[in-house]
Amino acid sequence: MSFVKFNDDNQIINFVRDHSDLFSCHSELAVEEISDGNLNYVYRVSDASGNSLIVKQAPPYIRIIGDDWPLTQDRIRIEQQSLQLTAQHCPQVVPEVYHYDSEHCVILMQDIGDHDNLRQLLIDRTELPLLAQQLGNYLAQMMFRSSSMAMESTAHKALVKTSQNPELCKISEEVYFWDPFCDHERNDVNPLLKDEAQSVWNNSELKCEVAKLKRRFMSDTEAMIHGDLHSGSVFATTDSCKIIDPEFSFCGPIGFDIGVLFANFLLNYAGQQNLPGDRCERMTYQGWLLQTLSDIWQQFSTHFASLMQTETLDPSLSEPGYQQWYLQQIWQDSLGYAGVEMTRRTIGIAHVADIMNIEDPELRADSERLSLQIANMLILQRNTLSTPKQLDDAINQLRT
Amino acid sequence: MSFVKFNDDNQIINFVRDHSDLFSCHSELAVEEISDGNLNYVYRVSDASGNSLIVKQAPPYIRIIGDDWPLTQDRIRIEQQSLQLTAQHCPQVVPEVYHYDSEHCVILMQDIGDHDNLRQLLIDRTELPLLAQQLGNYLAQMMFRSSSMAMESTAHKALVKTSQNPELCKISEEVYFWDPFCDHERNDVNPLLKDEAQSVWNNSELKCEVAKLKRRFMSDTEAMIHGDLHSGSVFATTDSCKIIDPEFSFCGPIGFDIGVLFANFLLNYAGQQNLPGDRCERMTYQGWLLQTLSDIWQQFSTHFASLMQTETLDPSLSEPGYQQWYLQQIWQDSLGYAGVEMTRRTIGIAHVADIMNIEDPELRADSERLSLQIANMLILQRNTLSTPKQLDDAINQLRT
Repeated sequence: MSFVKFNDDNQIINFVRDHSDLFSCHSELAVEEISDGNLNYVYRVSDASGNSLIVKQAPPYIRIIGDDWPLTQDRIRIEQQSLQLTAQHCPQVVPEVYHYDSEHCVILMQDIGDHDNLRQLLIDRTELPLLAQQLGNYLAQMMFRSSSMAMESTAHKALVKTSQNPELCKISEEVYFWDPFCDHERNDVNPLLKDEAQSVWNNSELKCEVAKLKRRFMSDTEAMIHGDLHSGSVFATTDSCKIIDPEFSFCGPIGFDIGVLFANFLLNYAGQQNLPGDRCERMTYQGWLLQTLSDIWQQFSTHFASLMQTETLDPSLSEPGYQQWYLQQIWQDSLGYAGVEMTRRTIGIAHVADIMNIEDPELRADSERLSLQIANMLILQRNTLSTPKQLDDAINQLRT
Repeated sequence: MSFVKFNDDNQIINFVRDHSDLFSCHSELAVEEISDGNLNYVYRVSDASGNSLIVKQAPPYIRIIGDDWPLTQDRIRIEQQSLQLTAQHCPQVVPEVYHYDSEHCVILMQDIGDHDNLRQLLIDRTELPLLAQQLGNYLAQMMFRSSSMAMESTAHKALVKTSQNPELCKISEEVYFWDPFCDHERNDVNPLLKDEAQSVWNNSELKCEVAKLKRRFMSDTEAMIHGDLHSGSVFATTDSCKIIDPEFSFCGPIGFDIGVLFANFLLNYAGQQNLPGDRCERMTYQGWLLQTLSDIWQQFSTHFASLMQTETLDPSLSEPGYQQWYLQQIWQDSLGYAGVEMTRRTIGIAHVADIMNIEDPELRADSERLSLQIANMLILQRNTLSTPKQLDDAINQLRT
C-alpha cells in the first residue's frame, strides 16, 4: 500500500468535501496546519461560518524527523479504534470521529479548538473544579469496560489482538524504562543535574523496581489503555474535558495511564516551585494539584469498585476481597509508573514545559531535583504509600 | 473450509504414504486407533519391520462428545506451533513433527510408544532418577526462550498473537478457576466429600486468592506455556522424557505449567496414602515425589537464573535483584496454580487415576481430603511457603 500524502491545501479540501458533509458545497474552506505532536500531520479545515474539523494524517515516518525514522502507519488505525471504543463507553471525553480512511491514513474528527491544553492550563495555574471527576470517571469506565471483567473472555482476547501496537510499545519500552535509567545517548540532562542523574543510573534497587514495572508493561493485557496520557493529551474548559492522541493505545496495565496522568500533575507541582509568579499563589496551586490527584483516585476507585461489584460478567471475579486487592494493585502500579514518567521527563529525551519554562538553570535544576526525589519515592515506596493522604504527606515532607 | 475426517484405515494409510517417506512403498501398513485424550483422533500406523508413526487429527468438535460440543480446529495449528518451538529450544523432549496438514487438521509425528505415561509410572511407584533434571531444564529453556527477555519485544508480541488460543483458554478458565470453587453442575464430588467441597465453595478468602490467580492466567502473556502439563501429558523411560499434547498452549504465566506439574506429583502423593500396596513402600515413594518436586524447582530455577544472567537481550531486565524477585514470583504462582489444579482434579470435572484407582470410597475420600488440604494450603500460603523445604515440612505436617 503506497502512502498518499496531501501535497497542498486543495487536496486536503477535496478529501474533506468527499468524506464529510459538514461544510456546504459553496462555502470557501481554509486550511491551517496545527501539527503539534511529533508524529503526525494535523490540519484544521474551516469555513467562514465557524464550522471546522480536524484532519489528522499519519505518514509512514515520524513527522518531525522524516523518512529517516520510519514508523508504522498502523498507529492511525489504533488511534481510531481507541477513539471509537472510548466514544462507546465515555463519549463526552473524545472528539467525534467523522471518518476514518485507512488508505490515506487519515482521521477526520471534531475540532475541539474551544478547549485548552491541560499542560498550559496547569502552567497558568488554572483551577478546574470538574476535572478530577471527569478524568476519574473516564479512567474507570474505559479500564473496566475494556477488561476481561466486563468483556467475554474470547472477545477480550480479540481486543488484545486488534489493539496490539508493537512498534509504538517498543518506543515506550525504551523511552520510559530504559534510557532514563542508564547513561543513554538519547538522554537530555541539565548539566547541573549530572550527579542526581548519575545516582539514578547507579541505583540498583531503583532499577530493579523499574524492571518489575517494565515486565508488567510488556506482558499484562488487563485493559485497553491510552498509552500516552500526559497533560498534553488532555484538553479542557471549565465544563468539559477531552482526551486525544491515543495512538500509543494497547491492552496493558491500568496503572500505566493513571500513573502517567499523576506524574504530569506532579511534574507541574515540581515546576510551580520555581515558575515565575507570586509564591503564595504557586503554593496554593501546588495544594490544588495534590488535591486533584487525590480526587482523581477517589473518583476512579469508587466508580471502578462499583462497576466491579455490579457489572463483572464472571462471577468468579466478583469476590469483595478481590475488589479491594485489585484496586490496591492499581494504586501501587500507578505510583510506580508515575515515578517512571517523572524520571523520563526530567532526565530522559522528552522534557515538559512545566519545568523547561523555568529560565534560570539553577532554579530549573531545583525543580528537576524535586521531581527526581518524588519519582524515586514513588518507585521505591509504592507498596507502603497506600493512600493519597500518605502520598501527600510524603510529598509535602520532601519539600520542607 | 470443510473438514475431511478419515473414514477408514485406507484413507489414513494413503495420507501417510503421501506425506511421509518413513515406510517403503511395498510394505504393508497397519492402523491402530489409540485415541486416549478427550479431544482428538490418534492413530498409530506401523509396518512389519517395526517402523511406526502417529497420526493425530483434530475434528471440529470434542471427540468423546461429538458434534454437540464444537471446538475450534485451530488447536491443531497451536499444537504444531508449540511442538515446533519446543523442538527448536529443547528438541529431546518432544516427538518430532514429520508433517503438518492444515486442511486435514493432521499432524504426523514420531511414535514415542517406547515411553510410558508418567501418570501410570507414578501410580506404579516408579522412581525416575533423571526426570527432575529433564523437566526442570525443559521448563527453564522453554519459558525463558519464549519470553520477552530472550525475544525482541516485537517478535514476542507476534508470538503472543499467533499463539492466542481463546477457545481452549476459555475451557481452562472455567474448569480450573470457576467450576471447582462453586457448586457447579459440571463438578463430580465423592458423596463422602460433600462437606469439604462445601467448605471450599464457602471460603471467601480462598476464592479471592483464586480470582487473583485467574486474573493473571487471563492477562499475563509472559511466556509460551504448554497449558495442560499434567502427568498424562508426559511420557518417560529411565533415560528419556517426552512432553506431548500442547493444544492448550498460549502465552501465559510461567507458574501455571510448573504448578500443574507440581499438582500432579502431589495428587499422586495423596493417592499413595491409600493406593494398594506395602505401606512402607508407599511412604518411601511419597518421599521421592516431594524430593522430585523440589529437584524440579531446583533445576528449573538454577537454569532459568543462569539464562536470565547471561542471555537477557534487554539490559534493563538484567538487574540481579530482579532475577531473585522474578523467580520468587514464579514460585508463588506455581504453588497457587498447583492448588487450583489439585482442587479441580479432586472435586471438579476431571479426576485423576492416581486417586480414582482407590476402590474403597472411604479410603478414596481420605486421599481426596488430603488433596484438598494440600490444595488449600498451597493457595492460601503461597506467599509464605518460600522454599521447597518449607513446602515439604508443611505437607508432612498435614499428614501427621
